Amino acid sequence: MYQIDLNCDLGESFGAYKIGMDEEVLQFITSANVACGFHAGDPSVMRKTVQLALKNNVKIGAHPGLPDLAGFGRRNMNISSQEAYDLVVYQIGALSGFLKAEGEKMQHVKPHGALYNMAAKNRELSEAIAEAVYKVDPQLILFGLAGSELVKAGEKIGLNTAHEVFSDRTYQHDGSLTPRTLPHALIHSYEDSVSQVIRMIKEGKVRSTQGVDVPVLAQTVCIHGDGPEALVFAKQLRESMQSEGIEVKAFS
Amino acid sequence: MYQIDLNCDLGESFGAYKIGMDEEVLQFITSANVACGFHAGDPSVMRKTVQLALKNNVKIGAHPGLPDLAGFGRRNMNISSQEAYDLVVYQIGALSGFLKAEGEKMQHVKPHGALYNMAAKNRELSEAIAEAVYKVDPQLILFGLAGSELVKAGEKIGLNTAHEVFSDRTYQHDGSLTPRTLPHALIHSYEDSVSQVIRMIKEGKVRSTQGVDVPVLAQTVCIHGDGPEALVFAKQLRESMQSEGIEVKAFS
Amino acid sequence: MYQIDLNCDLGESFGAYKIGMDEEVLQFITSANVACGFHAGDPSVMRKTVQLALKNNVKIGAHPGLPDLAGFGRRNMNISSQEAYDLVVYQIGALSGFLKAEGEKMQHVKPHGALYNMAAKNRELSEAIAEAVYKVDPQLILFGLAGSELVKAGEKIGLNTAHEVFSDRTYQHDGSLTPRTLPHALIHSYEDSVSQVIRMIKEGKVRSTQGVDVPVLAQTVCIHGDGPEALVFAKQLRESMQSEGIEVKAFS
Amino acid sequence: MYQIDLNCDLGESFGAYKIGMDEEVLQFITSANVACGFHAGDPSVMRKTVQLALKNNVKIGAHPGLPDLAGFGRRNMNISSQEAYDLVVYQIGALSGFLKAEGEKMQHVKPHGALYNMAAKNRELSEAIAEAVYKVDPQLILFGLAGSELVKAGEKIGLNTAHEVFSDRTYQHDGSLTPRTLPHALIHSYEDSVSQVIRMIKEGKVRSTQGVDVPVLAQTVCIHGDGPEALVFAKQLRESMQSEGIEVKAFS
Repeated sequence: MYQIDLNCDLGESFGAYKIGMDEEVLQFITSANVACGFHAGDPSVMRKTVQLALKNNVKIGAHPGLPDLAGFGRRNMNISSQEAYDLVVYQIGALSGFLKAEGEKMQHVKPHGALYNMAAKNRELSEAIAEAVYKVDPQLILFGLAGSELVKAGEKIGLNTAHEVFSDRTYQHDGSLTPRTLPHALIHSYEDSVSQVIRMIKEGKVRSTQGVDVPVLAQTVCIHGDGPEALVFAKQLRESMQSEGIEVKAFS
Repeated sequence: MYQIDLNCDLGESFGAYKIGMDEEVLQFITSANVACGFHAGDPSVMRKTVQLALKNNVKIGAHPGLPDLAGFGRRNMNISSQEAYDLVVYQIGALSGFLKAEGEKMQHVKPHGALYNMAAKNRELSEAIAEAVYKVDPQLILFGLAGSELVKAGEKIGLNTAHEVFSDRTYQHDGSLTPRTLPHALIHSYEDSVSQVIRMIKEGKVRSTQGVDVPVLAQTVCIHGDGPEALVFAKQLRESMQSEGIEVKAFS
Repeated sequence: MYQIDLNCDLGESFGAYKIGMDEEVLQFITSANVACGFHAGDPSVMRKTVQLALKNNVKIGAHPGLPDLAGFGRRNMNISSQEAYDLVVYQIGALSGFLKAEGEKMQHVKPHGALYNMAAKNRELSEAIAEAVYKVDPQLILFGLAGSELVKAGEKIGLNTAHEVFSDRTYQHDGSLTPRTLPHALIHSYEDSVSQVIRMIKEGKVRSTQGVDVPVLAQTVCIHGDGPEALVFAKQLRESMQSEGIEVKAFS
Repeated sequence: MYQIDLNCDLGESFGAYKIGMDEEVLQFITSANVACGFHAGDPSVMRKTVQLALKNNVKIGAHPGLPDLAGFGRRNMNISSQEAYDLVVYQIGALSGFLKAEGEKMQHVKPHGALYNMAAKNRELSEAIAEAVYKVDPQLILFGLAGSELVKAGEKIGLNTAHEVFSDRTYQHDGSLTPRTLPHALIHSYEDSVSQVIRMIKEGKVRSTQGVDVPVLAQTVCIHGDGPEALVFAKQLRESMQSEGIEVKAFS
């Protein structure tokens, strides 16, 4: 039987600033990636997000990002591998404080934005991130782009990993995501998105923009919760999983 | 037999900015309060400080502060008790990440600067801080000004606490520290400092500026490591403890 | 003939975070207080806000706040007068960069949130703020709570000032605003709000919650633009001004 | 007759953190690049630095950097040209506030660290920076690496520029600085440093590490003030200029 985890970035509000429809999207997902105060989130938002996820029986992971609140962690920064290690340890630790205060354990770690993207292709950076996760807690699951350097680094050091796929992004013939700067990077139709995900889960393949099939391992799907449309899609995707006989569940 | 812990604020450097003579003062102390990135410190400094303290067999505690790097956490801020709880959980968690990565445990928590001073007199704030410490880990020892609301709140919730005294500050008849804005707030002579500490430890008393003795519980002494003079004093104090038959050791 | 200025806090978005309906509220106001990056706003938001205000022929002022993005500048901080001077000079300067780049001049300065409230009652702080404004540009108009220490400090140093009144807040018998922690601090009815403003403008009086009239000088009215309801009220207030024969215009 | 400007980065302290020996190096330089709060500096440091420079008759320029205090502005960040424009306008404006408060004018703008280095090779980024400077004040002089895209962009938009050379760095055959990651990037001998500078000024040439002479325009020399050795060299360089008949003076 097939199974899949649905994850979403949560807790991205900051102070008086609100982003995301966390309460709503929590109904549809199984794993929450909680921002840790560097690219988004603050201590109060983190506490509330952890409590909210627990109330919804959603597993919780750290979502460490670059120290760039103004850029929402989306701008590449030339940090060293040591700095990456340090900021990942810090952010996992910070979130784990809130989990311990609630008597719970963290399930996973998924780097955010530019850190995620840089790590996907950079072995040294990925190994630093994987080491940070492993040394803080070897039971943590490392989420990374399916087939990327990040999941490879995780597997190499001995972590369980989750290969992540995207429902709303197209793929290149080498298995990478089509850069947002290129045409056809995004899938706009719900039907196409759902079909792509189902095929990735059941057949382990995705049709690239070059027209050839590419093998892809789909263990967790990234869902968005940043607007009414995103919520409609999250609901639809979740329902499709069930009607297709794909069990939707977290890892731990 | 008498015993005492000597603690010092460490890891207060930030990026390219260096404060403190951490390596040197670690020879003389038994507990290190490590800044957690809000009023001072950054992830790389925290890692190095933890590693350095471990190498010196010095016990490690979190030193959470207000989110005010520009003010070094010394400016009172009107945060709510909930915000205090949240930022203490966050900072303890962040530092514990580095301890877990090194396979070690945290000994204690000591709030920094304005947070320490506000908590000393504010019961609600103290209870929020104590709850944060307790919920993250009830084994942690809460350091606070001897006799203050903070140690009372710690004891009330079931934490072990350490009453902290100061060697270089004078006391008022109610057991509070003489405010720095008043004359005679600071003790400038090494001999007077050492004598005050020894009497606090052995007799449980301190002579207030009003000339009357005040009872005080001395379980840990705050040492400074921010300059050559501070180091000379730290060394001298440590030696005096030994010659007075006072055992210098941490708690756990 | 009566006249009044309508001002609103603008440019409070930050990076990916959006607050306020700036484009909409600009139709109804005559002066915009633009956040300067300390409690809200960032360089890109500031540029866009300045350009938007100019397009709408709305006069522009700096809205300096405390260095507390997480608290939106609403938490009192124990800064020194010298620090207040410095951060006001900095923020006025920063915004004036964008005005100069567009070939325009700044009309006014209105401190934000906790800085505004602390200054209203603290003469020394107010004098530091007024001096900062005056030394950067003595042509600037200082906005402050009607009758407050801030406008007094501005007048004393030789600045033009604007006494500000609130349409949605009740007043105490001493002319201060009813603290938000007390009942009846807010006026919820549009009609009552509009009536209060019109009476303040035409009669120079406001009925306090104690039931006695208090003299008040109304030169500018604070309008909110943070939601659909606020916009409806802004429109309504502006229209009432016109139907009452009160000219709505900025100062310079 | 030959002439040269000697510039130094100043005002890099932050809150309780001190970097640099500003007071001492001001005796030897003619232009000060003052940090503006993004990579270093804060409002209070900026005010003091401006006052100190004025007391020493040293011309003042803005030294805008990337928003990366933890990295001291030395880590490349993938900001857009629009973001570069915005943060340069902001920082020039902020510093100009302190200059206006002292009744003085700004002489120049020199980007800091990674922003300086990225701009040296990136035309689009350089044009955004040059436009920011020009639009805030077309009288400002833009400092950039001699022969770089930055000075070219400045000249293209109509700014006066200053080609900057380094006394302690070696050059490549294309006129670029030898990257710090390569051997022989730094000149360690005072004599060699001074000779290199004098030849650049008098002959307009520098011997590259490849052994061939490269033409270079030397209008301002970057001096360091971050330690006793740097000061000794600054003094020595200044004296050598005078004994070689090279007039040391600022631009405006």
